[in-house]
Amino acid sequence: MRNIKLTIEYDGTNYKGWQVQKNSSKTIQETIQKAAKKILKEDIKITGSGRTDSGVHADGQVANFKTNSDKSTAEMQRALNANLPDDIAIIDTQEVNLKFHAQYSIKTKTYRYTILNRDAPCVHNRHKTFHHPYKLNTSLMRKESQHLIGRKDFCSFQASDPAKRKTQKKEDTIRTVKRCEVKKRGDFIYIEIEANGFLYKMVRNIVGTLLEIGRGKDFYIKDILKKKDRTFAGYTAKAKGLTLLQADY
Amino acid sequence: MRNIKLTIEYDGTNYKGWQVQKNSSKTIQETIQKAAKKILKEDIKITGSGRTDSGVHADGQVANFKTNSDKSTAEMQRALNANLPDDIAIIDTQEVNLKFHAQYSIKTKTYRYTILNRDAPCVHNRHKTFHHPYKLNTSLMRKESQHLIGRKDFCSFQASDPAKRKTQKKEDTIRTVKRCEVKKRGDFIYIEIEANGFLYKMVRNIVGTLLEIGRGKDFYIKDILKKKDRTFAGYTAKAKGLTLLQADY
Repeated sequence: MRNIKLTIEYDGTNYKGWQVQKNSSKTIQETIQKAAKKILKEDIKITGSGRTDSGVHADGQVANFKTNSDKSTAEMQRALNANLPDDIAIIDTQEVNLKFHAQYSIKTKTYRYTILNRDAPCVHNRHKTFHHPYKLNTSLMRKESQHLIGRKDFCSFQASDPAKRKTQKKEDTIRTVKRCEVKKRGDFIYIEIEANGFLYKMVRNIVGTLLEIGRGKDFYIKDILKKKDRTFAGYTAKAKGLTLLQADY
Repeated sequence: MRNIKLTIEYDGTNYKGWQVQKNSSKTIQETIQKAAKKILKEDIKITGSGRTDSGVHADGQVANFKTNSDKSTAEMQRALNANLPDDIAIIDTQEVNLKFHAQYSIKTKTYRYTILNRDAPCVHNRHKTFHHPYKLNTSLMRKESQHLIGRKDFCSFQASDPAKRKTQKKEDTIRTVKRCEVKKRGDFIYIEIEANGFLYKMVRNIVGTLLEIGRGKDFYIKDILKKKDRTFAGYTAKAKGLTLLQADY
């Protein structure tokens, strides 16, 4: 038995997220599993570092699977890419220790949110960029974002969906944010967040809140965190601006 | 009568290039003209800085048109963008001197060619990037590219299509290349060329030749230029990797 670690790039526009769904929706995990089964002639179960929502993209999603195949990792990667659609690519394939588990072995994950901040609409990368035509105070967004860093209870930034929240309540809502950067490059603004884990919709809720701060709303990250109540944070930013940059082990 | 200068971004994937065609093919020029006619209630003729081929993109195509409308440039831009499809955007609109002509007033144009140089296929920007999986000697490409700079006869890099060449022969094939850069950023290679003008397919023929040089082919830009014969240069690189970056006046 061998354990194979994949690094995956995808354009999530045409998928119902990463995770296999009970209904017939097309997902990234399912698409890769089907390609792997075809190539390796085995029943392959692929484990991702975590889910990504419908319409969210990845530059470096990580997954692993067990196989009895004796194909080299280079052969596997080439065969997988030849059998995957053009919006999914395996960019790295390595044989790892049998103990490696893409979800449980993870140390940190990094997400990037991309905003085009100009009056004219977005043409290039329009499926991966959120168009925000109003003026934003990025210095203030940057200053406020620093209050997210550290080991904190992020329940104010969890999903507002009650069913989801119930699940989350049973879990721990404490996470450690290691890095949060607001970068301005021409008309683009990138918000990058690295943490040991994220609550469901946490990045998009943080981004929505920072965008409201940038627009001048009287919002303070410190206060929102203290409230421990989702209703005090900003809106959920659109999925299409979000990319899972990397997973570190 | 007023003269309006537009700066235009477009994803050329779904268009038969810039220029209006005699057949019913969808072009960028025609799409913008239709939107302008609708808004300004006049018969608008839009002049571009030059054609771009089918599948070629733009970050900064420039065009101008004459109008009797008294709408402000900001109003025009907003109305145009509201009436254009999501793969075309007007990113700047200015009223200019009546003498300004997008094609004849031009000083230089800059094109960028984007190559993804890795084994795994291209996911993000796959419609705007040429995937080249083989190893490339970028130092040699950079060194050879410097021989393109200056006022030279570029007939070796003109279109190989005989009908096109005949037209070109009547014209001058001398152009001045001001800048040619081969940049490596991670797995991406960007080839940027600025010149006072380009022969039909000149950039794509230069890129194809530089890619053959990077692969180790015994090609020398100096010799190819001296031959003054298209058959001595390399292949024509695919249209989709090419973007018109800017037009300077």
